[in-house]
Amino acid sequence: MGKKKQGTLIIIGGAEKKDPERKILKEVARQANGGKLVVATVATEEPEEVWKEYRKIFQEIGVTKIDHLDVRIREEATSEDRVKILKGAKVVFFTGGDQLKITSQLGDSAVYQTVEKIFQEGGTVAGTSAGASVMSETMLVTGDAEQSHQIGKMLAMAPGLGFIQDVVVDQHFAERGRLSRLLGAIAQNPRYMGMGIDENTAVVVRGDSLEVLGSGAVYVLDGSGSTYSNLAEKDEDLDKTMAVFDVKLHVLSEGNRFNLVERRPELPPKPEEVAASRGAKTT
Amino acid sequence: MGKKKQGTLIIIGGAEKKDPERKILKEVARQANGGKLVVATVATEEPEEVWKEYRKIFQEIGVTKIDHLDVRIREEATSEDRVKILKGAKVVFFTGGDQLKITSQLGDSAVYQTVEKIFQEGGTVAGTSAGASVMSETMLVTGDAEQSHQIGKMLAMAPGLGFIQDVVVDQHFAERGRLSRLLGAIAQNPRYMGMGIDENTAVVVRGDSLEVLGSGAVYVLDGSGSTYSNLAEKDEDLDKTMAVFDVKLHVLSEGNRFNLVERRPELPPKPEEVAASRGAKTT
Repeated sequence: MGKKKQGTLIIIGGAEKKDPERKILKEVARQANGGKLVVATVATEEPEEVWKEYRKIFQEIGVTKIDHLDVRIREEATSEDRVKILKGAKVVFFTGGDQLKITSQLGDSAVYQTVEKIFQEGGTVAGTSAGASVMSETMLVTGDAEQSHQIGKMLAMAPGLGFIQDVVVDQHFAERGRLSRLLGAIAQNPRYMGMGIDENTAVVVRGDSLEVLGSGAVYVLDGSGSTYSNLAEKDEDLDKTMAVFDVKLHVLSEGNRFNLVERRPELPPKPEEVAASRGAKTT
Repeated sequence: MGKKKQGTLIIIGGAEKKDPERKILKEVARQANGGKLVVATVATEEPEEVWKEYRKIFQEIGVTKIDHLDVRIREEATSEDRVKILKGAKVVFFTGGDQLKITSQLGDSAVYQTVEKIFQEGGTVAGTSAGASVMSETMLVTGDAEQSHQIGKMLAMAPGLGFIQDVVVDQHFAERGRLSRLLGAIAQNPRYMGMGIDENTAVVVRGDSLEVLGSGAVYVLDGSGSTYSNLAEKDEDLDKTMAVFDVKLHVLSEGNRFNLVERRPELPPKPEEVAASRGAKTT
């Protein structure tokens, strides 16, 4: 009963607007392809500032049709004028802030249904930082990243917007050292793959496959083959540190592709092949 | 031509002296078993303070024979009076600081040879933080932990004391988010396993096998089965982010054992078995 995956997702690990080359935001703009791009500032406490900042950037890189969607109280998420903003949009871009703001304000509302429809009809849903976390069916909200995951300590997780299945996304990954909390999330149910995305780095998801874009890395944690975890051992050792054996880790960088259903990275072409396809001289 | 591994290693991820229970330092003391324990403060800039601190702790937990080894200039590492301090020691404990201080001052000196002899004759070599890093044949000295590993950026590595083979140790692991630099180290040559040790956590190594002790986790990164790495691709993309596929990750916590030769964790006994062996009532 999975949702139809017909559009494109651009899931960004945060801080992409600091990149002077605007590599990732140019890809977001490219998806609009002359059509309307809507910047959704639902997650932030400073919607006007964030909107002005992104509007400036997107206009500088050639986006002409751009609009602002904000929702402060849930009632607005059902209002006709908010839905109207989304009409005809090719891209909806969720900025950073607090992921629970996005899901609690928009979840199952008319605005959400319109975003979903845009996606199902081939449009693009993009999001950075908190806007990246909400993409999955179940999202990470908070969790300690300063120490290894403790069995007795619950991670805060919540239902996300559900544009991507069987994946938990974490952002600012290497920058904030979030391995332990993402491992905690996937150990709860290895049906979920963990996807830790660095700053100024994105995955562009189409159908079952994704490609990495940007300067950092994407860490895929696959616990499906794991042979042991002590996560459910509630003995006297309630705050014992989590153990989990045989997790597979893939580190992907720009240009790498990954198949989400097969849970396999695609082997990149060999350097000789790349050189040949560029018409480089042989040495 | 590997060195004989006859003694015990206690490799500690740092900050163990802040533990009010002194769990790890009690294990170090237990290894002394009434014999002499030598605290080597070679790595630190404040040898007297560090010595006094550890002396106090070790005396509180019942160590009676304790002595202080310090080396400020390399000449001292060959002197008879320094070697004499080590004579008859059951345990040599290296404190934290700068790992290069330990190796550059002690490497191949009379003091080093005496420590090695203690180990080969069944004694214990313990070390925390920098004192943990020096245990391996090749050690990590520094490396950026704030971003994913870049191909063009060299990690600082140097020859260590060589008490454990085919392993690179990193410490303060979850606390300082050091996944990316340890991955960078093992991708250079997957013959080396990465071992990231949290604070107040230790691995006790005897022969080919280790056991985890303390409150945090130990992360074992095994790249031997990896199918792709772009580490040696020196194209125009010199500062490209590293990619590596199919790394195996094991997260171990207290009581878990790992075989260093087979590169496999031991499956812990099932909870029922533990309960039975404790004579617990069935519920």
